Amino acid sequence: MSNIRHALTVKRADDFAAWYQEVISAADMAEESGVRGCMVIKPWGWGIWERIQHLLDGRIKDTGHENCYFPLFIPLSNFEREAEHVDGFAKEMAVVTHHRLIGDGAGKLVPDPEAKLEEPLIVRPTSETIFGDAMARWVQSWRDLPLKLNQWANVVRWEMRTRMFLRTSEFLWQEGHTAHDGEAEAKEHTLRMLEVYRACAEEDLAMPVIAGEKPENERFPGAVETWSIEAMMQDGKALQAGTSHYLGTNFSEAAGIKFQNQDGDQALCHTTSWGVSTRMIGGVIMTHGDDDGLRVPPTIAPWQVVILPMLRGKDDDADAQLVAYCEELHEALKGQSACGERLRVTLDTKHGKASAKRWDWVRKGAPIIIEVGGRDMENGVVSLLRRDALWADNGKPDFHSPAKADAAQAIPAMLEEIQSNLFAQAKDQRDANITRGIETLDQLGEFYSAEAQYPGWVEVQWSKPTGAALEQVVEQLKALKLTIRNVPIGAAAADGSCIFTGEPAVERIYVARAY
Amino acid sequence: MSNIRHALTVKRADDFAAWYQEVISAADMAEESGVRGCMVIKPWGWGIWERIQHLLDGRIKDTGHENCYFPLFIPLSNFEREAEHVDGFAKEMAVVTHHRLIGDGAGKLVPDPEAKLEEPLIVRPTSETIFGDAMARWVQSWRDLPLKLNQWANVVRWEMRTRMFLRTSEFLWQEGHTAHDGEAEAKEHTLRMLEVYRACAEEDLAMPVIAGEKPENERFPGAVETWSIEAMMQDGKALQAGTSHYLGTNFSEAAGIKFQNQDGDQALCHTTSWGVSTRMIGGVIMTHGDDDGLRVPPTIAPWQVVILPMLRGKDDDADAQLVAYCEELHEALKGQSACGERLRVTLDTKHGKASAKRWDWVRKGAPIIIEVGGRDMENGVVSLLRRDALWADNGKPDFHSPAKADAAQAIPAMLEEIQSNLFAQAKDQRDANITRGIETLDQLGEFYSAEAQYPGWVEVQWSKPTGAALEQVVEQLKALKLTIRNVPIGAAAADGSCIFTGEPAVERIYVARAY
Repeated sequence: MSNIRHALTVKRADDFAAWYQEVISAADMAEESGVRGCMVIKPWGWGIWERIQHLLDGRIKDTGHENCYFPLFIPLSNFEREAEHVDGFAKEMAVVTHHRLIGDGAGKLVPDPEAKLEEPLIVRPTSETIFGDAMARWVQSWRDLPLKLNQWANVVRWEMRTRMFLRTSEFLWQEGHTAHDGEAEAKEHTLRMLEVYRACAEEDLAMPVIAGEKPENERFPGAVETWSIEAMMQDGKALQAGTSHYLGTNFSEAAGIKFQNQDGDQALCHTTSWGVSTRMIGGVIMTHGDDDGLRVPPTIAPWQVVILPMLRGKDDDADAQLVAYCEELHEALKGQSACGERLRVTLDTKHGKASAKRWDWVRKGAPIIIEVGGRDMENGVVSLLRRDALWADNGKPDFHSPAKADAAQAIPAMLEEIQSNLFAQAKDQRDANITRGIETLDQLGEFYSAEAQYPGWVEVQWSKPTGAALEQVVEQLKALKLTIRNVPIGAAAADGSCIFTGEPAVERIYVARAY
Repeated sequence: MSNIRHALTVKRADDFAAWYQEVISAADMAEESGVRGCMVIKPWGWGIWERIQHLLDGRIKDTGHENCYFPLFIPLSNFEREAEHVDGFAKEMAVVTHHRLIGDGAGKLVPDPEAKLEEPLIVRPTSETIFGDAMARWVQSWRDLPLKLNQWANVVRWEMRTRMFLRTSEFLWQEGHTAHDGEAEAKEHTLRMLEVYRACAEEDLAMPVIAGEKPENERFPGAVETWSIEAMMQDGKALQAGTSHYLGTNFSEAAGIKFQNQDGDQALCHTTSWGVSTRMIGGVIMTHGDDDGLRVPPTIAPWQVVILPMLRGKDDDADAQLVAYCEELHEALKGQSACGERLRVTLDTKHGKASAKRWDWVRKGAPIIIEVGGRDMENGVVSLLRRDALWADNGKPDFHSPAKADAAQAIPAMLEEIQSNLFAQAKDQRDANITRGIETLDQLGEFYSAEAQYPGWVEVQWSKPTGAALEQVVEQLKALKLTIRNVPIGAAAADGSCIFTGEPAVERIYVARAY
């Protein structure tokens, strides 16, 4: 077997941004579409999204939500009912103004002036306002509450600077929208869905996250509280991987979501909304990828095990026997389960040199690659590579050679081990890059300027300033290219002074550079 | 138990169109959104679509396709490369012209003139042109072929007259796009996917269809051949439920999808595309619905079995015991399988009068409804209703009273029986409404004018005129409000004269009114 290391051309340590683009291309996940700001998600990238959708959809249904589907287009007037909301999105809205094209007389088509819409339609950037309309129709009494809805949809926010998966003009997401009787229940639900996101990120994507509340300046337009899960990428920067919003009665007032409560009085619903998107896939790449390409956690891998017979491509008896040997393994593995689901195993008999195909699957990050050559077959074994432990100390691929029957038995546990291993690696790396004990803004500035490489996140204490005082803090951080990520749930109580104001601190926050 | 018949207010025989709207509303499937031509698909309607997606997605993957995702927006210039294609869609395209809103100085937001797009973007009505762009990048050699892709997406075709599920400006569908080495393989694939649609319609939706080729005048814009599956609704009209197109090299020429063939020469790919949409749900309603509401075939029912304890709503011991009794049944049923999948069973303990809830589930069309009252529990039985055989001869709901343990055992087979029963009913009804033996256009006119009610489809023989001669036939049929549906695969050979031209007939076609 070839021991040549088919690494990427760019290493993480040399140029993380270029490495990111190369992984996407080398793993054949996505590419630019030629349409400004929009990408084509290719089968391997889409397969990962299908897995995330499947698992998160189950979690969302398990918490009592029903899926539904609302229109892509939202009339502009809907947005205008909630002032903060429309202000937040007006600068990045794709606007449909015509519903027909017509020849311009010179052989080109142009929007037909006779088919101009009376009111422009907005391609949804988010759907609170149109869900709100329906909730106002559907909620009459406290018996109709809570109303717990979710949709899987595409949304558009016109972005000037795009990056695949992380920031694209069109992206795919789920957006949950719920209506409740009272503030307490709505706030509790906001946090329940944040916990669903934490579990999805950590258990399904093996991506450790910090759950907490965003500061006032980072709230969703129209929200009373915004909570997030924040993940640390391997370059130490933060990725906001999901948000959950308590919207108070802001959208209920705008849309008239009223109900008769148990006392017989009319009341406004308290609503929530929450979403995660294809951005998660960017998080998976930057959490688990290495200098050989992507590493996909088994739980979300479209194929968990790839079987590669080392065919000579001559369609002769030897090749046929090898395929038959691999098919036995394939069948044995398909009957096994890991993490409560049937194994996803593929037998790759496509044309091509076996070692080239191995490296294709390494770059795609398939968790286990099993190569089978003639000698393996003679010895009744297989040659097995674990993507999370690809290299032996001698600098060669670390092939294991279990007996074929043993491999079939051992693989489910091995996949679960890879899943925990990827999570543990990411968590160790994250924890090693969180710094505590910085007590003044000067120290913070020194810390970030002293480091040759970007040193990750810093946990500081603050007095939770609001309004203009908060704006000043945001500016001070901006000068250091830093942002407040969130106020983590379950952090130790504050015991010092605010690094911004010097006043007694009330809580701990994370500051970091971010995507 | 209440024996009051909670029928709809409109019967199929009285006003089929109004009945259709009432079923959608009474089964809580969808409603108008307030956005012109767009609907809100509510959880029960969406649940049916999720089932159709799941089953059809499996069939599409089983035939070797991979899912992916292409942009919502397509530059106008992409369309202009294929003249017939853009002509076919220009009149119904939603056009994005701006990417930002700005205040007009009078408190209103308007599209920002500074943010006008240089080239308008079309909200995709279909994606041949943008898949074509990518195929041109991805296909280099015969080794890259066949390329078999599919996406699940929303599309927009601006419709002036809309009807829920059947014709909406935005709709949801899957669109498959494939590229092949040569005409023979591409044509074979076009028919393979037509067969996938036939199987999905007949086996999953229990909706009998006629598969065949559309006449020249009904071809997809840019296609060389268009094939369809056609279903007969209970009013005798036809619903085109899915189409599969052989595109020849039209789109390959437009996008430059070329490859080096096995002889080393450059060749153009032959491509196909095929789609089915949320329109299928309209087909399910009009195939299986009755005067009590929807009847959902078990294979696509979000819940196949609904267990309704007849609670007194007092939260007392009696209610608790009843719930416990029902939970035992729930658990027993969840462990069972039908049609190769776990049963989908729900225990409905929501507030409300049991008989009112029963009728809600009847209108939604749950295949099996199990009511459990105190007396049932005492006797160790349950009261079971089959939605496909709701009424006994005495005009009362036809409750069966199997022992609880027997019910759990019997239900999988009962669900399979309901599935076949619905298919058989629909097929019998369709076959009874196909008329043969009409030999002249005059006879055809007499046939349709003589019938008090619309009599369904007529199979006629024709000489397959083309061009202007075909246009004349289309006009003649239009005068009778008829259209050619398709040339059925596997029909008997022609043995008479063309009813339009009097020339020797070459094939048989179906003519019908259509949705």
